[in-house]
Amino acid sequence: MSSVALSLTARAPGPAELAPVRVAVVGLGYWVPNLVRNLEECAAADLVAVCDKRDDALAKVARRTGASVRTTTSLASVLADDGIEAVAIATPVSTHHPIAAAALEAGKHVFVEKPLAGSTASARELARRAAARGRVLMPGHTFLYSPPVNRIRALLAQGELGEVYFISMSRVNLGLHQPDASVAWDLGPHDFSILRYWLGETPRYVAATCRSCVLPSVPDVAFITLEYDSGVICHVELSWLAPSKLRRTSIVGSRKMLLYDDTSNEPVRVFDSGVNLKDPETFGEYRMTYRSGDIVSPHVPATEPLLLEMADFCEAIRLGREPRSSAALGIEVVRMIEAVDRSLANDGARIDLAAPAEPAGPVAEPQARAA
Amino acid sequence: MSSVALSLTARAPGPAELAPVRVAVVGLGYWVPNLVRNLEECAAADLVAVCDKRDDALAKVARRTGASVRTTTSLASVLADDGIEAVAIATPVSTHHPIAAAALEAGKHVFVEKPLAGSTASARELARRAAARGRVLMPGHTFLYSPPVNRIRALLAQGELGEVYFISMSRVNLGLHQPDASVAWDLGPHDFSILRYWLGETPRYVAATCRSCVLPSVPDVAFITLEYDSGVICHVELSWLAPSKLRRTSIVGSRKMLLYDDTSNEPVRVFDSGVNLKDPETFGEYRMTYRSGDIVSPHVPATEPLLLEMADFCEAIRLGREPRSSAALGIEVVRMIEAVDRSLANDGARIDLAAPAEPAGPVAEPQARAA
Amino acid sequence: MSSVALSLTARAPGPAELAPVRVAVVGLGYWVPNLVRNLEECAAADLVAVCDKRDDALAKVARRTGASVRTTTSLASVLADDGIEAVAIATPVSTHHPIAAAALEAGKHVFVEKPLAGSTASARELARRAAARGRVLMPGHTFLYSPPVNRIRALLAQGELGEVYFISMSRVNLGLHQPDASVAWDLGPHDFSILRYWLGETPRYVAATCRSCVLPSVPDVAFITLEYDSGVICHVELSWLAPSKLRRTSIVGSRKMLLYDDTSNEPVRVFDSGVNLKDPETFGEYRMTYRSGDIVSPHVPATEPLLLEMADFCEAIRLGREPRSSAALGIEVVRMIEAVDRSLANDGARIDLAAPAEPAGPVAEPQARAA
Amino acid sequence: MSSVALSLTARAPGPAELAPVRVAVVGLGYWVPNLVRNLEECAAADLVAVCDKRDDALAKVARRTGASVRTTTSLASVLADDGIEAVAIATPVSTHHPIAAAALEAGKHVFVEKPLAGSTASARELARRAAARGRVLMPGHTFLYSPPVNRIRALLAQGELGEVYFISMSRVNLGLHQPDASVAWDLGPHDFSILRYWLGETPRYVAATCRSCVLPSVPDVAFITLEYDSGVICHVELSWLAPSKLRRTSIVGSRKMLLYDDTSNEPVRVFDSGVNLKDPETFGEYRMTYRSGDIVSPHVPATEPLLLEMADFCEAIRLGREPRSSAALGIEVVRMIEAVDRSLANDGARIDLAAPAEPAGPVAEPQARAA
Repeated sequence: MSSVALSLTARAPGPAELAPVRVAVVGLGYWVPNLVRNLEECAAADLVAVCDKRDDALAKVARRTGASVRTTTSLASVLADDGIEAVAIATPVSTHHPIAAAALEAGKHVFVEKPLAGSTASARELARRAAARGRVLMPGHTFLYSPPVNRIRALLAQGELGEVYFISMSRVNLGLHQPDASVAWDLGPHDFSILRYWLGETPRYVAATCRSCVLPSVPDVAFITLEYDSGVICHVELSWLAPSKLRRTSIVGSRKMLLYDDTSNEPVRVFDSGVNLKDPETFGEYRMTYRSGDIVSPHVPATEPLLLEMADFCEAIRLGREPRSSAALGIEVVRMIEAVDRSLANDGARIDLAAPAEPAGPVAEPQARAA
Repeated sequence: MSSVALSLTARAPGPAELAPVRVAVVGLGYWVPNLVRNLEECAAADLVAVCDKRDDALAKVARRTGASVRTTTSLASVLADDGIEAVAIATPVSTHHPIAAAALEAGKHVFVEKPLAGSTASARELARRAAARGRVLMPGHTFLYSPPVNRIRALLAQGELGEVYFISMSRVNLGLHQPDASVAWDLGPHDFSILRYWLGETPRYVAATCRSCVLPSVPDVAFITLEYDSGVICHVELSWLAPSKLRRTSIVGSRKMLLYDDTSNEPVRVFDSGVNLKDPETFGEYRMTYRSGDIVSPHVPATEPLLLEMADFCEAIRLGREPRSSAALGIEVVRMIEAVDRSLANDGARIDLAAPAEPAGPVAEPQARAA
Repeated sequence: MSSVALSLTARAPGPAELAPVRVAVVGLGYWVPNLVRNLEECAAADLVAVCDKRDDALAKVARRTGASVRTTTSLASVLADDGIEAVAIATPVSTHHPIAAAALEAGKHVFVEKPLAGSTASARELARRAAARGRVLMPGHTFLYSPPVNRIRALLAQGELGEVYFISMSRVNLGLHQPDASVAWDLGPHDFSILRYWLGETPRYVAATCRSCVLPSVPDVAFITLEYDSGVICHVELSWLAPSKLRRTSIVGSRKMLLYDDTSNEPVRVFDSGVNLKDPETFGEYRMTYRSGDIVSPHVPATEPLLLEMADFCEAIRLGREPRSSAALGIEVVRMIEAVDRSLANDGARIDLAAPAEPAGPVAEPQARAA
Repeated sequence: MSSVALSLTARAPGPAELAPVRVAVVGLGYWVPNLVRNLEECAAADLVAVCDKRDDALAKVARRTGASVRTTTSLASVLADDGIEAVAIATPVSTHHPIAAAALEAGKHVFVEKPLAGSTASARELARRAAARGRVLMPGHTFLYSPPVNRIRALLAQGELGEVYFISMSRVNLGLHQPDASVAWDLGPHDFSILRYWLGETPRYVAATCRSCVLPSVPDVAFITLEYDSGVICHVELSWLAPSKLRRTSIVGSRKMLLYDDTSNEPVRVFDSGVNLKDPETFGEYRMTYRSGDIVSPHVPATEPLLLEMADFCEAIRLGREPRSSAALGIEVVRMIEAVDRSLANDGARIDLAAPAEPAGPVAEPQARAA
């Protein structure tokens, strides 16, 4: 994965020598202006069409895009267009699977907003289909392209923090409630994808305590505990209800500790603090001292993650390789969210992710989940 | 309880008209200098003796106390001294019960460092004994005398926040590991007593995920989830391992939200923010808007909580009433900590505090707990 | 001015019933994309042309503007175009006067980037010309449209702070050095216009200590002291060299105090703190006590100032009235900057702004100033 | 001076092999409890007596000091006592000279609260007297013993910041007004002594703008500008009126920049930021780029400065050397404060400290200054 990082860093927004990938955007949610802008700025991509059912949404986008970008309300026409190599899907989660499946069938490469699909089964089905067709399937886990997240991943990989003891994450602010998805489906993919990327493993156990405070049956606060086979434990607090925005992650390791705050001018802070433990000297006696050294905020470049993500998508298509935000990673994220739902449905019970997968029946698509 | 608050506020450090209570301090831990200083400053108390097994600890205290304070290594002589009306016990948790029981038997009023005892059974036994003897038994839940905590309690009581949805608490810093107790027994009493005091109820369910990072079998990080019959859910993060000290509590209510940080110059911040929800207009359609108004940091006086606590102890003795930090509250706190231990022993299972009490057997004293 | 505030608040981005003003932008500096975007979003304005000498700058802008916006390298053609009612000038300061003068002569209304002109004499000449022609001349003091600045102005007008004792302002960050202007000409207009707007008076005395740290003869740090006839004293620290960005203004009044930080989520914080002074009781004895009450961060809407500014420009044109950022205010700001230069040229001497104006000779245009 | 630093670090609180210096404290202001406590903790000192005119102040101190500390209302008896080697004077500034002079005449070594004396003439007279008598005369510039201040001094000495361009200091909070001294005499000694210690030079020019906001003729806010022959310029803002406490110093150098905040958990923050300037390539063209690297908060030990200061005082006496906070430095600080007064008396004029000293006449003692 480091070679990807290198090529992204060295050549972003994209390898000039490769022909730009002709992309259509399908579905125009509130976040699409960013997607469109970055596709236009990315040298490796060529935005050729945008597609949505709503004429007014199309008209709005048209005002900001070049004249060469076609607008259409017909998904079928996009999929039938041989001039379009890839689609970027930004529709509600419940439609990810049918649209992505149709696009893959039509031979398109597919970028799909996070989470990859509304169930592990659907996500796996898409991955199988993409593999069979030889097409790139990439979930939009944009934080995997965030410079602070990557800086931290490098610190972890170099053993700078020592053994990771535990991680505590808070992602809370006021709004926006999603009418058809829980806070775990909305915000969880961010933290879950970051954890998977940093730790390289999926938690063994997941337990969650949630409450539907404002809307009935739409959990808007979640306290989620994750336990890993490696011994790491994590807590993730997610909420659409909070007095002030908080994006705070602390990582405690045996050598150093770290704070990550995506909203800060100093997003990564490394604390040379810890416990020095001497071997027991007498029966049952331990001697420990606390150590507080320098605190360093490493400089992290301010490159826009979405631009790097689009470049990786295009490069993966042209070079025939996996994108950093791979379908495999996207499946693991969906498994984690599903485990939250299962814990919630079982009074907060600890779900064992290594247990044999239950039959697909009980795992419904997101809209059912919020009912 | 509001009458207590009033008299404490109006007449602290103590009602001058009542004769000072003659107090002995038993056990000289690291926190005792504060206790001694406040007993000396409290007009309602008269510190007459300090007792510890260690001569050097006594010598150290003697340097800071007036000449009239007797030092002794004999607990028996303290308990036999009719000139001593009350003892303040600051010994390790495992000795709380035997020393407090002996003191009550000797007819002394008892203040005991938090937690009240090492098990619910022991705590209840002490409470029964105090009631039978007509003596005050008071656990040292000092935060119940903290001005910010009381300001928040008043805001909650007045309905200023509306219905409380959830509470998230973090109490982390680097150190100090306790050799014979988990982080839940060491730091948990603070947050659990505050929650009991604010909400007036004990959680129905407790679940905990812990890890013993530094010392084997001494959990030094705990993620604890509490669920209340009223619907409130809480998360409490406790740790002796943290990159920077954090004392952060957020309370989210239906009308307003609040942040409490005991280390800040503005310990209480009230956010006039929330969600306005209109009734469903069409089938299944909810309409909500977010509201962000003023943020207020109410002025909170800087009175030292321990001084108010000592005054309440003395006044409770003289007036024959319950102290705010009552034995009953102390028992509930121990029940909550025990539930954390039980959850921990059962792989993080959700413990039902309303279930019939299990036999006393498996609940051992704290030293066993850390074994 | 309060009526302006009301109409801006109530009807921004502009009164729909008035025909949009047809505007051309002249000069494409780094800040122009914001200007163009806001002109396009402002219902009261109709962006019809952009003009710059550089073809590449024009091409870049063209990509982001609608097809109806004409680009041209000929200022003369813009001024000769009867379809253009107003020009917004965003060229270097030294060209403000000739271009604005030509535009006024051509009968255009003129918005000109701050500062209004490179000398008081030039600024006055433009104002006279605009008055003679019956055209609006508006310097771009955007902070006069900033919601926090207006909230503070209202607090001052209502006497909420009592008598203003002093104001301390810091506006520092790393970069951007201007090659042909000092930091006082670059950043000073922000603070000077805010002070003029808040206090309604021009300082009587100005003294400045500066240093040209990086480039010879281009002062990049300035400590400026202002004294007002009302007794208010101010200090303004300006710098392009700073370890971290700081936008901090404190206002100390006899009743309350206030902090203003444009970069904060809570841009205005009002402190109910002060000194209570009793009359002297004995010869020469004063008794004072300090008071610390609540701290309030009033909610301030996040409307973009530049949009309100464009709306005010257009409304002033259509309704034939002064804009809030008037030429008269712009002249006062230039007088203050000139006084900084004069103090600098006289070893930091205190300049009396009420003294008879020196002959125009020594006051050169900005490029000379930095020489 | 680095050898002093070493010995202080290595052997604080004092060289055990030297006999403790027998010290009496004269004058019991609000700050004396700290002085007494540190003298008692300092192994190099032996507190033998405290002296004050007020019996109640003596009684209060007696409660906290060991039985061996004598209390007296007679300064004469202290000075006549051959068992007393040194006095620490903590009386109002106007009495520094007479008491210190009498103590030196009696053969005592003298520590005197900052500032050294109420005028440069008085300060110099004391220094001459101490030199003639072979006694240590040490002003209490405690910040010279502050670990963060020394860390910064080392960074400056090592050239870590490059050439110092400018320094900006703010020392403001609400209170405490001094009835007989301006804010410059009260707070100025802190910043002026720090600057003298860091830069090793006295400013060439001093200019000040002040206002007496609350009490007539007692300036409680001061904006002070300092210019050094080396080119460094400084601004110092002092005030007893401020919405929130601020202790903020920024140092901008050609290589790095630094923030110092004595109230922060991270008192020193070093910013690897700056401007890279290439030589002019064409006529008058400069090319510069901005550089933002890591930010480091070096670990600074939390040793109490006053303890180190007392140890230095005693060691200077025993070893017959200058203390770090020397009389010479104390004189320079008084010269700087006097220059503030002179600027104030001359409408903020820039005072040239290198100009021949004016006759002693006009420079009155502090009480006159505030009249």
